[in-house]
Amino acid sequence: MKSSYAIGVDLGGTNLRVGVVRSDGKVEAQAEIPIGQDKSPKRIVNLIGEHVSVMQKKASFPIVGCGCGIPGIVNSGDGVVYSSPNFPEWKNVEILKLLKKEIGSPVIIDNDANMFALAELLYGAGKGHKNLIMLTLGSGIGGGIVIDGKIFHGDMGFAGEVGHIVVEPDGVPCGCGSIGCWEQYAASKAFIHIIRRLPKKEEDGLLAIVDGDLERLTPEFVADLAQSGNQSARELWKIFGRYVGIGIASIINTLGITTIVMGGGIARSWDLFIDSTRAEIVSRTYKKNTEHLKLLKTSLGEFTGIVGAASAALSPPL
Amino acid sequence: MKSSYAIGVDLGGTNLRVGVVRSDGKVEAQAEIPIGQDKSPKRIVNLIGEHVSVMQKKASFPIVGCGCGIPGIVNSGDGVVYSSPNFPEWKNVEILKLLKKEIGSPVIIDNDANMFALAELLYGAGKGHKNLIMLTLGSGIGGGIVIDGKIFHGDMGFAGEVGHIVVEPDGVPCGCGSIGCWEQYAASKAFIHIIRRLPKKEEDGLLAIVDGDLERLTPEFVADLAQSGNQSARELWKIFGRYVGIGIASIINTLGITTIVMGGGIARSWDLFIDSTRAEIVSRTYKKNTEHLKLLKTSLGEFTGIVGAASAALSPPL
Repeated sequence: MKSSYAIGVDLGGTNLRVGVVRSDGKVEAQAEIPIGQDKSPKRIVNLIGEHVSVMQKKASFPIVGCGCGIPGIVNSGDGVVYSSPNFPEWKNVEILKLLKKEIGSPVIIDNDANMFALAELLYGAGKGHKNLIMLTLGSGIGGGIVIDGKIFHGDMGFAGEVGHIVVEPDGVPCGCGSIGCWEQYAASKAFIHIIRRLPKKEEDGLLAIVDGDLERLTPEFVADLAQSGNQSARELWKIFGRYVGIGIASIINTLGITTIVMGGGIARSWDLFIDSTRAEIVSRTYKKNTEHLKLLKTSLGEFTGIVGAASAALSPPL
Repeated sequence: MKSSYAIGVDLGGTNLRVGVVRSDGKVEAQAEIPIGQDKSPKRIVNLIGEHVSVMQKKASFPIVGCGCGIPGIVNSGDGVVYSSPNFPEWKNVEILKLLKKEIGSPVIIDNDANMFALAELLYGAGKGHKNLIMLTLGSGIGGGIVIDGKIFHGDMGFAGEVGHIVVEPDGVPCGCGSIGCWEQYAASKAFIHIIRRLPKKEEDGLLAIVDGDLERLTPEFVADLAQSGNQSARELWKIFGRYVGIGIASIINTLGITTIVMGGGIARSWDLFIDSTRAEIVSRTYKKNTEHLKLLKTSLGEFTGIVGAASAALSPPL
């Protein structure tokens, strides 16, 4: 079969990544561009257009189209970004229309976690599966749901907003307006909240290390502490893993999908939390499901976003 | 189009319902049979066979097959009931094989909530929808998920076990082995647990009414109290409604499906809890989803189970 090529765009809060991807998932060329201060839709669309154009020139064959993964509440059907935590100015932006005008070739957009899910399904850890759940553990929790080999978008286009599964109904307020959302307990802000779950003495010990400044309890910081042998930090990662498991258990009990692929910055600390996550899932789901449970780490690394976005353009999910 | 007929079997913990259903959903004949003490697979299969045979004789045309809805962990693919809270003896029972042998005509089995979902989708409150969530609020919470007009079974056949979504991770132990499952807070045992959420004075007032016997706080009892004007009972229903909403919010944030049909005994007290449920969902899900939110009461009543089961036989979900 002759290879075809597409351009994948992965828009993050800090960097834009653009690449040329072959239909077998190989990245032919790619670039990472800092976004800078001006995050207006106009400027970002110009920036994407400029770098897509650079990539088009690098492609060894004509490209069939361009896929673009965007964080936030994105509707791939009507092409609108309703809101995005990383781009506060973006409200009801008709981004697909703007991109089509700028780029000129066929464009498809979707939520970034959905693009990650496609990449893992076609070329990564989820290869060969019919159904899978993709989770990105980062500043929030993103989710992509694959059912029967296709991204499931739900009625209004917003399936997979799993970061807002309720895990502590009277817990920590979330930026979305709800209370006790999963992403307050199993994403980058988690350690600030779950430190209270430690025995008082261990909590005090950790607080002394950061001079009482909770904001310093980032996943990177707590991971370094744990790796250096600090037992309280290791315990904190276990509590974190427990909360990861609580959310996944609710997803498994709802969907009966047992292949879970995890990516995002925090997934790099896999060994610090995954045993605790697995134990929690096993204690909260039916044996017949957990017998087939697969907790998988993303295998495509930094290219997941562009590969997924390009693959959406190579075989648009109709 | 010529009508065809199927037999629907709705196996409950107390009664067995069997009926002849026409392809337009009309129930031609039906019977309700008390199950009695002996709940062994052999006896129940005999009982079903006997009454299916009676119905076959009543059908005005030959029937195309028989569908059977069963409560519990049921795999429609391999035809096995792994466990069922209403039938404690049933462990890994090859019920489909036994039924086929007993009945002789084509048989299809599925979890009862999935059968209810099919009925609502084809003939009831969910008519015209592509995606819907069916919830039965009774002794537990059953769930059926319809995606693209078909029951979604998940990887192992156990999608829709939403009663075990985690709503209070350190809350009340559940019979399933987990802790804080949704069905402990939004099904028949709920009032026993949520009474503690009332202000002390109101809690004491209600406890005095039942002479401190928490087991008397059944949904029927608390509904009668509320209907008779007891303010604490009305408040308790609002807390109940809140927990119904918390679980539904997690489902909506996961699946982005905004049509929710509710049945089961407790749904009869709809007016006592639904406003509180709706408010909770609205506060915990994205506006774009709640704008399209439909909370619907089952419209098929006591026949939902047999109509759904028969419809599965009329157009088997492949």
